[in-house]
Amino acid sequence: MSRSQLAENTCTAARAVELFADAWMMMILREMFLGTRRFDDLQGLTGVSPATLSQRLKKLEHIGVLCREAYQTNPTRYEYRLSAMGRDLWPVIVSMKAWGDKWLGSAEETPVAIIHKQCGAAVTPHMVCPACRAPMAAHDAEPRLSPKFEQERQGARGQS
Amino acid sequence: MSRSQLAENTCTAARAVELFADAWMMMILREMFLGTRRFDDLQGLTGVSPATLSQRLKKLEHIGVLCREAYQTNPTRYEYRLSAMGRDLWPVIVSMKAWGDKWLGSAEETPVAIIHKQCGAAVTPHMVCPACRAPMAAHDAEPRLSPKFEQERQGARGQS
Repeated sequence: MSRSQLAENTCTAARAVELFADAWMMMILREMFLGTRRFDDLQGLTGVSPATLSQRLKKLEHIGVLCREAYQTNPTRYEYRLSAMGRDLWPVIVSMKAWGDKWLGSAEETPVAIIHKQCGAAVTPHMVCPACRAPMAAHDAEPRLSPKFEQERQGARGQS
Repeated sequence: MSRSQLAENTCTAARAVELFADAWMMMILREMFLGTRRFDDLQGLTGVSPATLSQRLKKLEHIGVLCREAYQTNPTRYEYRLSAMGRDLWPVIVSMKAWGDKWLGSAEETPVAIIHKQCGAAVTPHMVCPACRAPMAAHDAEPRLSPKFEQERQGARGQS
């Protein structure tokens, strides 16, 4: 299977992976969640090359994750803002950050603290079950595959 | 900046991104969270080539995300299991799946339902503030940068 075929996969996680499992895509998203909106700032703060940044921003706009808005004319310059679809990626970035803080961080202060606006606490958000509100981790979850996905996987087991 | 320099970044999210923003890494992790443990199954079920799978498994073992355990001898064959460090990546995969279900899914049934073992509900886990327990999304959070990270970023703004 080629990487681009992931986009055709029944598994929605695989399809999301095809779009976002790219270091620069993730770095651009991190930066946008930190409030950065302009091309030159995005470029300087992520360290990506202008050509790569331009290509990734076009892709993010095409997917619908961000929208472009002119903030000056003559010459026209644009700001990039996350759409609702883009803002919904927050848990992905926050989970990666939380994992990095726990497993790759040093004893130093975390580089970015997340302040919960409503209560003012500096927090590491965590996942809960929306039904019973208990915290949820890997061992609390049991995956249940749809018949279609199960069938798709039957032939693929141990096949080389 | 080259992609590998992300590993040296002060930002722990950037360092996690350097490790995992790779389509096959994510697909292997997805598969391991579905309970797949053997090389041939991992290969068939993700569609990755044997050489790439072997390289990624070595990397995951090296990072400490998985451990290898012999399940037969003559010839020796191994199973791969997620370590505690690996199981902690569950929120990353689940967030990506939830996003994919919402924004890339069709009207069909989700390919993988997550059952919360304790309460039995089929759920989309969500993030909450651990301090006040309110659900948290992008607009509820304010990033606060550490002085070191803030300083590191000063020179990088709008620099090309």
